[in-house]
Amino acid sequence: MDQLTVENGVQNVLQLPATDDEFGGVVVEMKEHMDSDVFRTLLKTSMSQWKLQGKKGVWIKLPIDLSNLVDAAVKEGFKYHHAEPTYLMLLYWIPKTLCPIPANASHIARVGAIVLNDKGEMLVVQEKMGILRGVWKISTGIIHKGEDITVGVVREVKEETGVDTEFVEVLAFSQEHNVFFGKSEVLFLCMMRPLSFEIQIQETEIEAAQWMPLEEYAAQLAVQEQGLREYITALCKAKAERGYSGFSPFPVTTDSNGNPSYIYLKKEDLNKNICNK
Amino acid sequence: MDQLTVENGVQNVLQLPATDDEFGGVVVEMKEHMDSDVFRTLLKTSMSQWKLQGKKGVWIKLPIDLSNLVDAAVKEGFKYHHAEPTYLMLLYWIPKTLCPIPANASHIARVGAIVLNDKGEMLVVQEKMGILRGVWKISTGIIHKGEDITVGVVREVKEETGVDTEFVEVLAFSQEHNVFFGKSEVLFLCMMRPLSFEIQIQETEIEAAQWMPLEEYAAQLAVQEQGLREYITALCKAKAERGYSGFSPFPVTTDSNGNPSYIYLKKEDLNKNICNK
Repeated sequence: MDQLTVENGVQNVLQLPATDDEFGGVVVEMKEHMDSDVFRTLLKTSMSQWKLQGKKGVWIKLPIDLSNLVDAAVKEGFKYHHAEPTYLMLLYWIPKTLCPIPANASHIARVGAIVLNDKGEMLVVQEKMGILRGVWKISTGIIHKGEDITVGVVREVKEETGVDTEFVEVLAFSQEHNVFFGKSEVLFLCMMRPLSFEIQIQETEIEAAQWMPLEEYAAQLAVQEQGLREYITALCKAKAERGYSGFSPFPVTTDSNGNPSYIYLKKEDLNKNICNK
Repeated sequence: MDQLTVENGVQNVLQLPATDDEFGGVVVEMKEHMDSDVFRTLLKTSMSQWKLQGKKGVWIKLPIDLSNLVDAAVKEGFKYHHAEPTYLMLLYWIPKTLCPIPANASHIARVGAIVLNDKGEMLVVQEKMGILRGVWKISTGIIHKGEDITVGVVREVKEETGVDTEFVEVLAFSQEHNVFFGKSEVLFLCMMRPLSFEIQIQETEIEAAQWMPLEEYAAQLAVQEQGLREYITALCKAKAERGYSGFSPFPVTTDSNGNPSYIYLKKEDLNKNICNK
């Protein structure tokens, strides 16, 4: 009876179409256009039912072309949970207890590429916009939705500089807060091996790119990222002179689509152990 | 003239209140209640002005109690950018070029705590809900908004088990996709030193907690996290027997609120270098 049926022009207002989730809640995925008053009436009836049934969280997913229904859901007590360009997800937590449902994703994942050639020169770029304009810096970029770190960093270097690279390891990572609309950021500093050397810049975002001696890179005075720049220089030297080793990826589990996940760790001390298990 | 003025009951419909952002766009933060038709008329007028002025991105931030304005903004061509429980942010990218503004945060940051006592026992819990119910696992939890990894992991262990701990280092991290509404997750596996040993569980989420010999933990058959469990066991052994070293935090820069950021790296090979610069 989880259907809205229309017979002979008479609406049998029953309940919004909903599916159970695995945590004792229900999910309403609205797909068809509906008058906002009809929606609000249906929602009231449905909520009463779900409360009687002891449901916990009630989710409503509204595609952006059903934005006429947002106000009705909010008026019925729903809060926003998250939004993407094409939809808005609302949540109503029925129990009196504190809602244990995780908030929206809180972190942006970014990669920074440390690409060194055989002459000890590093691949650097100047961006066209932003606070680091005019400063030589490593290629950085935001990881796409669902993209592995190892893939995203190769893509970013190729896009910005035209240089083909191979992922070696994560040398370090940093965590910074309040980067973008109150969200935090994790930046993975990746050691990359160049597979080509000719530079062809991405005209829209990049002003210039070049292979630059490490000393020259280190000597720049860029207050905004002074700390990070010092660590990047130190990491390059430690890698070259003292065999600094970062974290390398190993496949862990497989999600329902058959895609492997990766764990990043220091392989030298672990390989034997994993092999001997 | 960026004001909506009301004089003698007559609205001088001019333009929505807006401030310039640093990327050539404008930000409209709606705060006062407004009729949705008035809002739509104002928005139309304002958009014409902003287009003439060569503005790029137009942002509208709508608190949840102004949900009556969502539909009007969408009808004028705005897309959702992101939402938090108390507000919705919409975006209109005026130029014909591809919108370079980063999408919403894509990653959940989670911590897992590896807490070992002097007898080689590990602190493990059983959760009350979820696919790992009935399985002994390490304490894990989602990092709060704006929370450092080193702080979040101490909080999680204390909340779930009552045990006080001290952060030692990040032994490894993993990246997994499609974890929660299509978002990805980074899990930081943290080595923790116990400062207390008495267990007091969090009744709402945790079924049980105990100090368990590592062999016993490793021997459990939990298909859902088999891969990760093997790596955790191997990491513990590598740490105890072969001096495996992970990444330790060092302060990098300071944001506008005076909070330091941290870079996580392998300190042994780097300390001298940073000190000698």
